[in-house]
Amino acid sequence: MTTITFPQGKQFDLVAIGRLCIDLNANEINRPMEETMTFTKYVGGSPANIAIGLANLGLNISFIGKIANDQMGNFIRNYLAQKNIDTSNIVIDKTNAVTGLTFTEIKSPSDCSILMYRNNVADLLLHPVEVQEGLIANSKALLISGTALASSPSREAVFLALDYAVKHGIRIIFDLDYRPYTWRDEAETAVYYNLAAEKCDIIIGTREEFNMMEKVLHVQLDDEQTASKWFTYKAQLVVIKHGGDGSIAYAKDGSRTKSGVFRTSVLKSFGAGDSYASAFIYKLMQGETVDVAMKYGSASASIVIAKHSCSDAMPTLDELEQKVKNGTYET
Amino acid sequence: MTTITFPQGKQFDLVAIGRLCIDLNANEINRPMEETMTFTKYVGGSPANIAIGLANLGLNISFIGKIANDQMGNFIRNYLAQKNIDTSNIVIDKTNAVTGLTFTEIKSPSDCSILMYRNNVADLLLHPVEVQEGLIANSKALLISGTALASSPSREAVFLALDYAVKHGIRIIFDLDYRPYTWRDEAETAVYYNLAAEKCDIIIGTREEFNMMEKVLHVQLDDEQTASKWFTYKAQLVVIKHGGDGSIAYAKDGSRTKSGVFRTSVLKSFGAGDSYASAFIYKLMQGETVDVAMKYGSASASIVIAKHSCSDAMPTLDELEQKVKNGTYET
Amino acid sequence: MTTITFPQGKQFDLVAIGRLCIDLNANEINRPMEETMTFTKYVGGSPANIAIGLANLGLNISFIGKIANDQMGNFIRNYLAQKNIDTSNIVIDKTNAVTGLTFTEIKSPSDCSILMYRNNVADLLLHPVEVQEGLIANSKALLISGTALASSPSREAVFLALDYAVKHGIRIIFDLDYRPYTWRDEAETAVYYNLAAEKCDIIIGTREEFNMMEKVLHVQLDDEQTASKWFTYKAQLVVIKHGGDGSIAYAKDGSRTKSGVFRTSVLKSFGAGDSYASAFIYKLMQGETVDVAMKYGSASASIVIAKHSCSDAMPTLDELEQKVKNGTYET
Amino acid sequence: MTTITFPQGKQFDLVAIGRLCIDLNANEINRPMEETMTFTKYVGGSPANIAIGLANLGLNISFIGKIANDQMGNFIRNYLAQKNIDTSNIVIDKTNAVTGLTFTEIKSPSDCSILMYRNNVADLLLHPVEVQEGLIANSKALLISGTALASSPSREAVFLALDYAVKHGIRIIFDLDYRPYTWRDEAETAVYYNLAAEKCDIIIGTREEFNMMEKVLHVQLDDEQTASKWFTYKAQLVVIKHGGDGSIAYAKDGSRTKSGVFRTSVLKSFGAGDSYASAFIYKLMQGETVDVAMKYGSASASIVIAKHSCSDAMPTLDELEQKVKNGTYET
Repeated sequence: MTTITFPQGKQFDLVAIGRLCIDLNANEINRPMEETMTFTKYVGGSPANIAIGLANLGLNISFIGKIANDQMGNFIRNYLAQKNIDTSNIVIDKTNAVTGLTFTEIKSPSDCSILMYRNNVADLLLHPVEVQEGLIANSKALLISGTALASSPSREAVFLALDYAVKHGIRIIFDLDYRPYTWRDEAETAVYYNLAAEKCDIIIGTREEFNMMEKVLHVQLDDEQTASKWFTYKAQLVVIKHGGDGSIAYAKDGSRTKSGVFRTSVLKSFGAGDSYASAFIYKLMQGETVDVAMKYGSASASIVIAKHSCSDAMPTLDELEQKVKNGTYET
Repeated sequence: MTTITFPQGKQFDLVAIGRLCIDLNANEINRPMEETMTFTKYVGGSPANIAIGLANLGLNISFIGKIANDQMGNFIRNYLAQKNIDTSNIVIDKTNAVTGLTFTEIKSPSDCSILMYRNNVADLLLHPVEVQEGLIANSKALLISGTALASSPSREAVFLALDYAVKHGIRIIFDLDYRPYTWRDEAETAVYYNLAAEKCDIIIGTREEFNMMEKVLHVQLDDEQTASKWFTYKAQLVVIKHGGDGSIAYAKDGSRTKSGVFRTSVLKSFGAGDSYASAFIYKLMQGETVDVAMKYGSASASIVIAKHSCSDAMPTLDELEQKVKNGTYET
Repeated sequence: MTTITFPQGKQFDLVAIGRLCIDLNANEINRPMEETMTFTKYVGGSPANIAIGLANLGLNISFIGKIANDQMGNFIRNYLAQKNIDTSNIVIDKTNAVTGLTFTEIKSPSDCSILMYRNNVADLLLHPVEVQEGLIANSKALLISGTALASSPSREAVFLALDYAVKHGIRIIFDLDYRPYTWRDEAETAVYYNLAAEKCDIIIGTREEFNMMEKVLHVQLDDEQTASKWFTYKAQLVVIKHGGDGSIAYAKDGSRTKSGVFRTSVLKSFGAGDSYASAFIYKLMQGETVDVAMKYGSASASIVIAKHSCSDAMPTLDELEQKVKNGTYET
Repeated sequence: MTTITFPQGKQFDLVAIGRLCIDLNANEINRPMEETMTFTKYVGGSPANIAIGLANLGLNISFIGKIANDQMGNFIRNYLAQKNIDTSNIVIDKTNAVTGLTFTEIKSPSDCSILMYRNNVADLLLHPVEVQEGLIANSKALLISGTALASSPSREAVFLALDYAVKHGIRIIFDLDYRPYTWRDEAETAVYYNLAAEKCDIIIGTREEFNMMEKVLHVQLDDEQTASKWFTYKAQLVVIKHGGDGSIAYAKDGSRTKSGVFRTSVLKSFGAGDSYASAFIYKLMQGETVDVAMKYGSASASIVIAKHSCSDAMPTLDELEQKVKNGTYET
């Protein structure tokens, strides 16, 4: 069975780079947002959620990002610090940028939508010279997510972080996390996703995301071909998600692992991907095989989608083990 | 005693133009925003608040503005419509602009602050060609507020609305409402405030706001001189606010009226100005003298600052009359 | 016969504000620009041309403007200084803005076109706080031209200059000079042209320019009505140009003067308006009647359109008097 | 001796992508630009110059770029077409962008400077979807230059062109051509230069350009180390220029070739690099060894720096052979 090795003897298990923002989740659910009167505030953003999930499970995590110089920014940094996440490379913006916001609308468990505020957000202003090489040198893995590639200078900060990670031989994990509304057009997106993916060891995305990356090159690949393409670069593991049909992990050694599902009572669909990723990465870093990691990923997702938030709902190791032990894993 | 006459036989008592946005007011008060976990959503924006206040008191109001094409925009339009405010000139943005947000932090009754989201907001995208001349022709008064002058094309929309108002001989009320963070610099602000004020019949602002308008011209005026300056243009009434020291209304006929205060238990300071303005304008339009209008303005303010919101707390005529009858007006 | 009075005892006869740029005129004429191989460099821009024309005729002129911090900017300042124009309020840009360029294409005397470079030009970066009130206080007249209203902060600089001119009671001359390509849209243009024209004593423009200013207000005026409208503000003289059919000057005293033409051999049509304006203003400032000023304006235009440049071709007083004496003035 | 192989059986010898602009060269030399009165117009831009040089020498060349929809754009396209360069992928801008301009100032043979107009230029608006994959598939080599990476969408167009070139196995030549004024900052520049260089077979640049690319990674390499770094990616040949000390070509096979110089009477230094590159590439594509290619490069440079323009002065094969035969090559 396939496992992924990570460099040892590093201060941090993983350093994440990218989006730090605020989720404002509707308190009154099962109705359109027009009729929602109150909202609860949580830390959000895909890499932030995954970092929090990993910290909850006991890993030593650092974060590279930029926050607004206001109460929202303070809240984010305080929250991460309380989770024992290293915030020494969380830079405070000096240009009056704001914190990105995501209002959620929960009409029904399967009909959720979001309303984003992404104009002049601090997280996209992280500049390459603000990325601390030493932090990356002292980590076993770097986690990037696609949203941080959406505009300059955050885009260049991520590419420089990738260069540092390559220079120091640490593992790189790419959570594609493609959000069309933050990008100018699909061709631009594909160009940078492809440039970044060439440098990554583990690539996690939906079939649609991989399609977007391939379309600009005028090719149409099936899952096997997609995975094979990235194996010619640096990838060792390519996880392709097929929504309700589950995910398949392709490894460079030729193995192929399909995920199952832990049934639960779904409150909302948000957070499924981030909670999956955090437990999946956790188990891979523990030296577990891909199929075990996928099982824990599914367990983690089933816990989070039954709760109101993403970041705040990330399970502890105990909760996760309980779910794996007591839940029903349908494959 | 001074009264202001308004044209008669018009469909609307007043048409307001400008900012329509969302207030997100902290539910947990007396603490910094970092520790605020939930927020309640209200319609906000100075001209919106005044328009709602006037509609509550029974006037026939229309609004000229632009809203985002999303749930926040829908909520604003629905709320105004429920208040019987005419929304036929509330234009829906087609460019993915967002709704302006104002998060409030209530540390104590006297220590309140706000955090604004004003990047790419729909209200500032109102274009001059979207302003319906007929609506202004069919109103007794036009209300403008300074925030709508902060950038193009909303700035030009307001100037064109002023031209229409002059063309049709209707009264113009200017609530200065200067918010530095939405402006590039003070000189730019002063230029447009002065150009707009030249065309207005009633000008309401703080001493600091008038100072800002005069500084760029290298003059320093006292209240009398400030008022006199505007009487050489079109003004009939200039209200200058001195914070805790109350306001003074200067009329072109030479009269001078000082406001008093209704004491109350203050929850937060937000909304005092807008609630004052709505009752003050209401009484002026009823043909009352300036001193009566100021008394009702103070009563209205004392009601709103004791409650959690601005727009939603605007009193009905009954509430207002009760306050005037039963409250203590200290002059 | 109508004359215009100007304040006396001032250091400068006239201060102009606005565009300073470079004309690059095709040396090989009567062919499309694609086939033009060499260009000659001149100072250009409507207010610069008029200022140079006035200085040539012996008036004491100052200029308020902004130039790029490069060789083109140096050339402009040096040229004006050689013409004895005061350059103490010509500010040097510090933001790497460039000098506006106008390439001319002379296919035939009647078929001339231009290609403009107006992105990030220094002249439109003049900031209101850079305008010296003292210079305006010490001039008999202020000349503005419409292009300087095209964008911020130059737009606000012009409005502040107008405020200073009103404060100090000096004459204001507005050369409409509407160049559509420098503006976002016609409604925005009309709003600012109207705001500026309200403060001016002498307004000079084409029928099409006045139409543009009136269209946004949903009115359609003939020449008499247009002139009458501005007489209700501050105007004393409104000159409306009808292309080949000549110009008509309407005075507040009810007089109406039609211009004639000095026939000449036309090389190109550029510069006709600026050379006309300079001699026209010169004669008005000498206390001559409007009809004499118009005759000299026509003479000046006939001299410039027979030569290769605008600024460099502006006549001296001797040349102008010779033309008036020896030329045939067809009315 | 080292040679570079190119794929055979392609329609075009080379396709260049990037900057197409206009040079306006001072006719009056040996003086500052302030005193230059006339300018002559030429096609310019590093990849354009190299493409013209290659076409002059008889290669079959295509160009991928974007031109303004005006007389300057027409002139560029016509000129390339006259040189038998394929213009089927020269896109005409539809957004009123302008043609980039470069004014030259020739104070002395060794003291030349330029003044660039790069705001809103058409060449930087080339969009990735406008790049024709078929054209790249049908070429033996792709030439990119660094200026086209300076901003979006041209930056993405170049990266996509690189992807197409890799997909079709054609040679890629990277002329670094770093122009600081077109970039936001050095870190951003280095990130994209490094990403592009990873995909290139032949990299040509100055020592300072390679230093800039290395500085962001906190490494300082000598020529050998720089070349070795790129050999770990795709490079086969790395040419590092040391100004007056000549250039050194490092090949992946370990060879190292130093260039010499043909003495000439220098008029201006502009164009030396582009003329060198065109003859160097030409000879490499003829199957010649690196040292022969460098000799022809030097001969070509010595011809161009003695003449007034860059593009127009590119030698024919006859001229080049004459220079090599009759000139003195000092090594």
